[in-house]
Amino acid sequence: MTAIFATAEDAENAFYDAIARADLDALMAVWADDEEIVCIHPTGQRLQGAAAIRESWRGIFAGNPRFTVRVAHSVRWSGMLLAVHSVVETLYAGDATTPQGSLLATNVLQRGASGWRLLAHHASAAGEDGHDEAGDGVPRTLH
Amino acid sequence: MTAIFATAEDAENAFYDAIARADLDALMAVWADDEEIVCIHPTGQRLQGAAAIRESWRGIFAGNPRFTVRVAHSVRWSGMLLAVHSVVETLYAGDATTPQGSLLATNVLQRGASGWRLLAHHASAAGEDGHDEAGDGVPRTLH
Repeated sequence: MTAIFATAEDAENAFYDAIARADLDALMAVWADDEEIVCIHPTGQRLQGAAAIRESWRGIFAGNPRFTVRVAHSVRWSGMLLAVHSVVETLYAGDATTPQGSLLATNVLQRGASGWRLLAHHASAAGEDGHDEAGDGVPRTLH
Repeated sequence: MTAIFATAEDAENAFYDAIARADLDALMAVWADDEEIVCIHPTGQRLQGAAAIRESWRGIFAGNPRFTVRVAHSVRWSGMLLAVHSVVETLYAGDATTPQGSLLATNVLQRGASGWRLLAHHASAAGEDGHDEAGDGVPRTLH
């Protein structure tokens, strides 16, 4: 059974929900059925295709404690068939309430016959003088 | 006078051409006239709006020797009004033929009344085990 995502936001939420549950099948179900899908990890690896992307996330889920991603400061652009979200991801390990770090991500989503799916996820480290996460004018160093 | 870019590729080419010429006005003319434009530099800064983006590039052009960017390994998705290009940028200082380093970039372009313009540029360092630049199966360390 494959979930249908009615909006780009639904697909993006499902992506981060799958990460929080370390659910590899759910994570991969969010991606478009397209051999050109691209996932760029903060390590600087650019992976193409479902097999390489699945293997990378399998390793991430196996090698790390459970973590959740809170998404904020979204800037969204959308067309009929494509949508792009620029977001700030704040990572929390397990049940921790103190963030472990921040990433900047660009998520590209596509509307196809079976709803919205992820085409590309580009994540990279947020810099020390990067985004003002708390919105109080004080840049944070989170990693 | 503002240039009209007939295709997303034209706008992207103009962006990298402006970088090679360190031409701040030409660079800024490629961006969409939208306060939500986003530029993420490899340092991890996420800048929003033309003023912040202009200032960051002014600093880059002022503080560095001239450099050119060769773009390769493009993966492109396009709709009627939005296009996204995932590219590998190889940087060359001045007239050097040896690359100084590689970046991974996601470029988001929008078609408006005056042609295609850049909405977002997300650049981050390519990892040591990242993209196989030479296409010969041997990952390169370029930075």
